[in-house]
Amino acid sequence: MKLNIAVLAGDGIGPEVTAQSIKVLKAIALEFNHTFNFKYAPVGAIAIDETGNPLPEATLELCKNSDALLFGAIGDPKYDNDPSAKVRPEQGLLALRKALGLYANIRPVKAYDTLLSKSPLKKDIIKGTDISIYRELTGGIYFGKKETSEDGNTASDLCEYSREEIERLAHLAFKAAQTRKKKLTLIDKANVLETSRLWRRVVTEVAKSYKDVELDFLFIDNAAMQMILNPKQFDVILTENMFGDIISDEASVIGGSIGLLASASVGDKYAMFEPIHGSYPQATNKGIANPIASILSAAMLLDHFDLNDEADLIRTAIDKSLALHITTPDLNTKYDNITTTKVGDFIADFI
Amino acid sequence: MKLNIAVLAGDGIGPEVTAQSIKVLKAIALEFNHTFNFKYAPVGAIAIDETGNPLPEATLELCKNSDALLFGAIGDPKYDNDPSAKVRPEQGLLALRKALGLYANIRPVKAYDTLLSKSPLKKDIIKGTDISIYRELTGGIYFGKKETSEDGNTASDLCEYSREEIERLAHLAFKAAQTRKKKLTLIDKANVLETSRLWRRVVTEVAKSYKDVELDFLFIDNAAMQMILNPKQFDVILTENMFGDIISDEASVIGGSIGLLASASVGDKYAMFEPIHGSYPQATNKGIANPIASILSAAMLLDHFDLNDEADLIRTAIDKSLALHITTPDLNTKYDNITTTKVGDFIADFI
Ligand SMILES: CC(C)[C@H](C(=O)O)[C@@H](O)C(=O)O
Ligand SMILES: CC(C)[C@H](C(=O)O)[C@@H](O)C(=O)O
Repeated sequence: MKLNIAVLAGDGIGPEVTAQSIKVLKAIALEFNHTFNFKYAPVGAIAIDETGNPLPEATLELCKNSDALLFGAIGDPKYDNDPSAKVRPEQGLLALRKALGLYANIRPVKAYDTLLSKSPLKKDIIKGTDISIYRELTGGIYFGKKETSEDGNTASDLCEYSREEIERLAHLAFKAAQTRKKKLTLIDKANVLETSRLWRRVVTEVAKSYKDVELDFLFIDNAAMQMILNPKQFDVILTENMFGDIISDEASVIGGSIGLLASASVGDKYAMFEPIHGSYPQATNKGIANPIASILSAAMLLDHFDLNDEADLIRTAIDKSLALHITTPDLNTKYDNITTTKVGDFIADFI
Repeated sequence: MKLNIAVLAGDGIGPEVTAQSIKVLKAIALEFNHTFNFKYAPVGAIAIDETGNPLPEATLELCKNSDALLFGAIGDPKYDNDPSAKVRPEQGLLALRKALGLYANIRPVKAYDTLLSKSPLKKDIIKGTDISIYRELTGGIYFGKKETSEDGNTASDLCEYSREEIERLAHLAFKAAQTRKKKLTLIDKANVLETSRLWRRVVTEVAKSYKDVELDFLFIDNAAMQMILNPKQFDVILTENMFGDIISDEASVIGGSIGLLASASVGDKYAMFEPIHGSYPQATNKGIANPIASILSAAMLLDHFDLNDEADLIRTAIDKSLALHITTPDLNTKYDNITTTKVGDFIADFI
């Protein structure tokens, strides 16, 4: 197979972890006789520095002409604490999601048996956890009208949803549930929000086409508790943009390291793959950033094109690296000198 | 001291746990020679059943003529899964908060040493946790304009904040931090929301009057992780309504039981005290509901009127009950027959 892959490595540790994924994808191409072409483009803070725009035209153009996107990370602290900044790196990511119509963000959360002891949660609570979170990614309060009064003393953000936005994601989530434990939990705040009540109504309707899937509902505040008290109760989670942002980051603690979690953002035409972790500026260029999340996102990319054997080989290589303690310091209890690059090398060599 | 206390026991387990608080407050009144007058009024689902209104006029009237409110719980599943219900129990609570101007919701989160093993988190992660959450309670997306289109296919909720709403709560939170570890964390989503950027701007300004307090910022998604990875890093948390709802419920898992967490909702004129747990319909009238959260909210009520010795005596009695395993089944590893009433009796007798 021939794939044109746009690489948007972004900020902070983005470039160094993405470099490992590319190395691994090249090993896969060699082993399985595929042709993967990588084209690089700036996004985020680095793009602001270069062009003034967190999502330059040329970057978006490249993405539209590629089969898939490999994304690193975005964000720089110099913008976070400057509430008056008019341009922010995150806008690049949000604009990209919107421009490419990437409405479904899929985040698998698994507790790796070899890493159970790394979790802040007790072993018996997390063992066996296997969740797939479907987060709506191009609507809600992220994209509604934002206003600040002229005197700067009041501000507002509008959360909006339409039936179509909910339906298309719900269908994906129900289909996923059918291939899994056949349980779907909608997380909302229907006791307070009108948009949540729309979600409940639409999802209840969509559920009628998936009678083999059990549907239940949880308020986001309760869900934030349940995720820690008993994560094993979840199979597929379906939720709107902001709640999905919160609950998926919270769920990331279960496995003991956010450095292990990948995500796919897909729409009807395009698909983007990225680690869940952010740009982690404090770790940049120290060789300590865990590349596994990025490499797993490369595996999700392969799965997306039905290259499942290839994706499975990557996962086997990762399991091997974990078992042999070829991991960065965040996970390593045995060696303290395994760098980002060494982990990438090991996994690529194994392949 | 003479206090007129309005009792709004509400739904589910509300009445049975509130009954224990009243018992305990009566014991305190006897011991310390105070006069506490209790007047009862319906709120929530039970008020809808009786009057069609989740916050009847007479209930609000009673509250306005009382020195403080003791609140139980609100909510009934028969309304949750009916997105077309026009009246909902929760509206009673929201209307009450708004009508009484209870803009500050204060939720202390502590890990009890005697209960460390009950937590889903590992002991070394939680031991020593002591957080005070200041949640804005009468603004934000809870109270902004809500709309559903006529065809029912789109819906919206508006999140709004003004400088004043942020300032008054920020002052309370900074003052609290001054009496504690002098650290305040603002939780927001300033990389996406305009309202969050207003919060950051206003809180940064307010901070100038509290130079002894260290201020830092955390995005809500990151905060949802940090709360589990390392809850000890927090002292005072300040946040808007929805994020406060989520993060405080999440934090409630730390102590091993939501049945131990109380809250105060205060404004410039009125103050209300309530357990954090909800109406927990499955447990209603089984004698298994833990009354400690409600009793602790009664202690917060006493503190509010500077009856600190009285409040401390309640806390001592609770510690004793925990040490002696006089607790409901959710916490009890020794006896399985201690009911809600027995816990209340023990604490009242101790006093
Ligand atoms: C960087 C930020 C805008 C983004 C989000 O909130 O969506 C991130 O937290 C994520 O989850 O991908
Ligand atoms: C019952 C509900 C409306 C309420 C809220 O979301 O504020 C509850 O969850 C709380 O935290 O007091």
